[in-house]
Amino acid sequence: MNTHKTGFIFKVLVKPFTFTFCRNLSESAARMSDIKKKFVLPSRYAGSETSVWNEYIKLAAAYKPLNLGQGFPDYPPPSYVTDALKEVACSENNFLHQYTRGFGHPRLVNALSKLYSKLIGREINAQTEILTTLGAYEALFSSIIGHVDNNDEVIIIEPFFDCYEPIVLSAGGVPKFIPLRLKEVEGRLPTSADWVLDKNELEGLFNSKTKAIILNTPNNPLGKVFTLEELTHIADLCKKHNVLCISDEVYEWMVYKPNTHIRIATLPGMWERTITIGSAGKTFSVTGWKLGWAYGPENLLVNMQLVHQNSVYTGCTPIQEATAIAFEKELTRLGEDECFFVSLAKELEVKRDFMAKFLSDVGMKPTIPEGGYFMIADWSPLESKVDMSSETDKYKDYRFTKWMTKNVGLQGIPPSAFYSTVHKNLAENYVRYCFIKQDENLQKASDILHKWVGK
Amino acid sequence: MNTHKTGFIFKVLVKPFTFTFCRNLSESAARMSDIKKKFVLPSRYAGSETSVWNEYIKLAAAYKPLNLGQGFPDYPPPSYVTDALKEVACSENNFLHQYTRGFGHPRLVNALSKLYSKLIGREINAQTEILTTLGAYEALFSSIIGHVDNNDEVIIIEPFFDCYEPIVLSAGGVPKFIPLRLKEVEGRLPTSADWVLDKNELEGLFNSKTKAIILNTPNNPLGKVFTLEELTHIADLCKKHNVLCISDEVYEWMVYKPNTHIRIATLPGMWERTITIGSAGKTFSVTGWKLGWAYGPENLLVNMQLVHQNSVYTGCTPIQEATAIAFEKELTRLGEDECFFVSLAKELEVKRDFMAKFLSDVGMKPTIPEGGYFMIADWSPLESKVDMSSETDKYKDYRFTKWMTKNVGLQGIPPSAFYSTVHKNLAENYVRYCFIKQDENLQKASDILHKWVGK
Repeated sequence: MNTHKTGFIFKVLVKPFTFTFCRNLSESAARMSDIKKKFVLPSRYAGSETSVWNEYIKLAAAYKPLNLGQGFPDYPPPSYVTDALKEVACSENNFLHQYTRGFGHPRLVNALSKLYSKLIGREINAQTEILTTLGAYEALFSSIIGHVDNNDEVIIIEPFFDCYEPIVLSAGGVPKFIPLRLKEVEGRLPTSADWVLDKNELEGLFNSKTKAIILNTPNNPLGKVFTLEELTHIADLCKKHNVLCISDEVYEWMVYKPNTHIRIATLPGMWERTITIGSAGKTFSVTGWKLGWAYGPENLLVNMQLVHQNSVYTGCTPIQEATAIAFEKELTRLGEDECFFVSLAKELEVKRDFMAKFLSDVGMKPTIPEGGYFMIADWSPLESKVDMSSETDKYKDYRFTKWMTKNVGLQGIPPSAFYSTVHKNLAENYVRYCFIKQDENLQKASDILHKWVGK
Repeated sequence: MNTHKTGFIFKVLVKPFTFTFCRNLSESAARMSDIKKKFVLPSRYAGSETSVWNEYIKLAAAYKPLNLGQGFPDYPPPSYVTDALKEVACSENNFLHQYTRGFGHPRLVNALSKLYSKLIGREINAQTEILTTLGAYEALFSSIIGHVDNNDEVIIIEPFFDCYEPIVLSAGGVPKFIPLRLKEVEGRLPTSADWVLDKNELEGLFNSKTKAIILNTPNNPLGKVFTLEELTHIADLCKKHNVLCISDEVYEWMVYKPNTHIRIATLPGMWERTITIGSAGKTFSVTGWKLGWAYGPENLLVNMQLVHQNSVYTGCTPIQEATAIAFEKELTRLGEDECFFVSLAKELEVKRDFMAKFLSDVGMKPTIPEGGYFMIADWSPLESKVDMSSETDKYKDYRFTKWMTKNVGLQGIPPSAFYSTVHKNLAENYVRYCFIKQDENLQKASDILHKWVGK
């Protein structure tokens, strides 16, 4: 009877509680389900969810390989550049910590105007023809979003910096891809100059729906420095079809002799249809400063400015001031041996040659880059040494790079990340390595690979 | 005959030249016209071209008034904050100048997690529930663009920070406005608590198409600190209609006694549907650092992250490191008298009271703000002293503020900039002044106004 009574009390007291509890639980589950159903990414972002960077940064954190993945130096930036930030941080001028002009800090746009007016051979108006941005990334974003409307076609040359495609898609645009293809090369290593566009294929992409073409010279990841002839062909098509050229030139100072960087905005009739993009991070080896810029004619810049105004509004004042100081220094010694833009390229050329040698020594086939600080290499001659059965990625270069990170301790980036879905197969035999790294670390990479292949 | 001959030669030589020259000119004009026709802002940005900030910053540059317009301090930030940036700039750790984690620098998201976990009363995951952004502005952008799809309705409370509307429009959303209205007040100055929403009007805006409401507490420009009762009403409507709450709380530390800042994310059932936005610029008096953040549940944050990833990708490393150092300092003395968040509010309260006094002394009718560092004042009692016949703006507050800048030497911001077109008339008798200014400059503002009204 006691148990019965207890059972009874238990039923009386607990049942409603259980009922309420379960009702609350199921209500809460229903509410979460409603939330998850409703608060989803707008359709314009569909398919843009993955990022090779997030994936490979996590991979590096988990396996601690020697990391030649992301593009930044692992050694100190030039001291006069970090000194400039010190100077700003120590300044008595407290306005250097407050809002500055939204379209660009005055001292910085003046310095940029002086520099690029010289390089372009025309007076660039600091107020109306330059926009400073939160990284070159934001300059790409603002230039694309500020011009590409629904159903506008945008030509993208492959391989391409991976953000071009999702930004064009989020604007409602239609990316049209064309790959650089490697010519037959006999008896020597290929260079990035051997990767070329098919002229007819390129012409076939231009039509009345084409709003823009995105050019990247020097190209990431190939290192290709487009020649005058190649740029002239692109420029002629832009003029013929009234197309905007968005020219991503963030590696403009990393060009190896005898190549020279040609700014497409300097070609006849191109200034008025070109937005050129640069980067303080790449120029001064301070990728963490997150400062970029764009220059071009006022009627194009105003469209970018409006997107900038409605997404970030203004840039970081102390970082812009410090970058202005750094540019002012370089303006006094432009083209001289001590100029950082000159010495950086010399320094990187040695690293490039060292990497090309050890990659080919172990049996890979690198493409010698004419510019930039990345090198792609064909790893397929070593395929027999790789057991990728444990890797499940769709593309072979993902499987290879993940396997290498986990089993050999060296990380590169799979270049198919820089191709559209239909062309990813073109990159499956390649890996991208970054060579703006300490000599010691490049030596380690060499040692790791030599040990792996048993040489 | 000589003249004839010369004339003939002139015709022969010059005509083709003139013809070619004119043809080139007209071709070039036609080309420019093609460019201008084609390279225009996409339709989603139509109507967003003007910015009160650009206009009033130019005006200030031209007339050099005492500027109480834009919201930033004209005195130094706390020295431990600028010292933190010095420390980073002088650090031997050169990785502080390179790319950091895209969704937030590890040291900073850890500090933010510690702080807001305490304030919110739940553990906030530093990796998945926080995103650092390039200013709170970018957090607003990413949260709106990451959730608002075509034809989604978004409720905006007026007056509102002016970027909310164009960002919602650029996402294809439909803003639905509701103004705070001033209650009848007898025998005293109004406070921002006297500006209230009509409950029925608010309920009438919620429906099945409502995706989000944007809340701003403390509100800019009113200084209104929403009460628990007001927030509960908003929260209940959000839950009833399954609506996202984007809570802009950048003035969270500028709240004057006896008011307290309540985070709507702490209300029952609101965490899972709220994105809360904060600002290093406002928190530490360094608006030029351009650093903000958002926190909320992972399933909402991932949508923001994707927009962030496809517009700016990552933030500024040295600025994030310096801000982390500053937060770590405050975490050791949270709530104590020496805590900057406490001392700042005390300091500002004195400035607020000083400004309220001189504005009412000269005959304006200020609304005493409960929070923030702006004050709006009804200037219409002084209308007879103003000759705005030379000003051509549509709205009276624009004409008044421009006339004052040019003729009296004191600049404020026209608050109709913070209203939708249909409600701009509600703000025409007001001006917004910023009081986070040196005492000396507030005294000058007082002197200028007293001199003007002849007192």
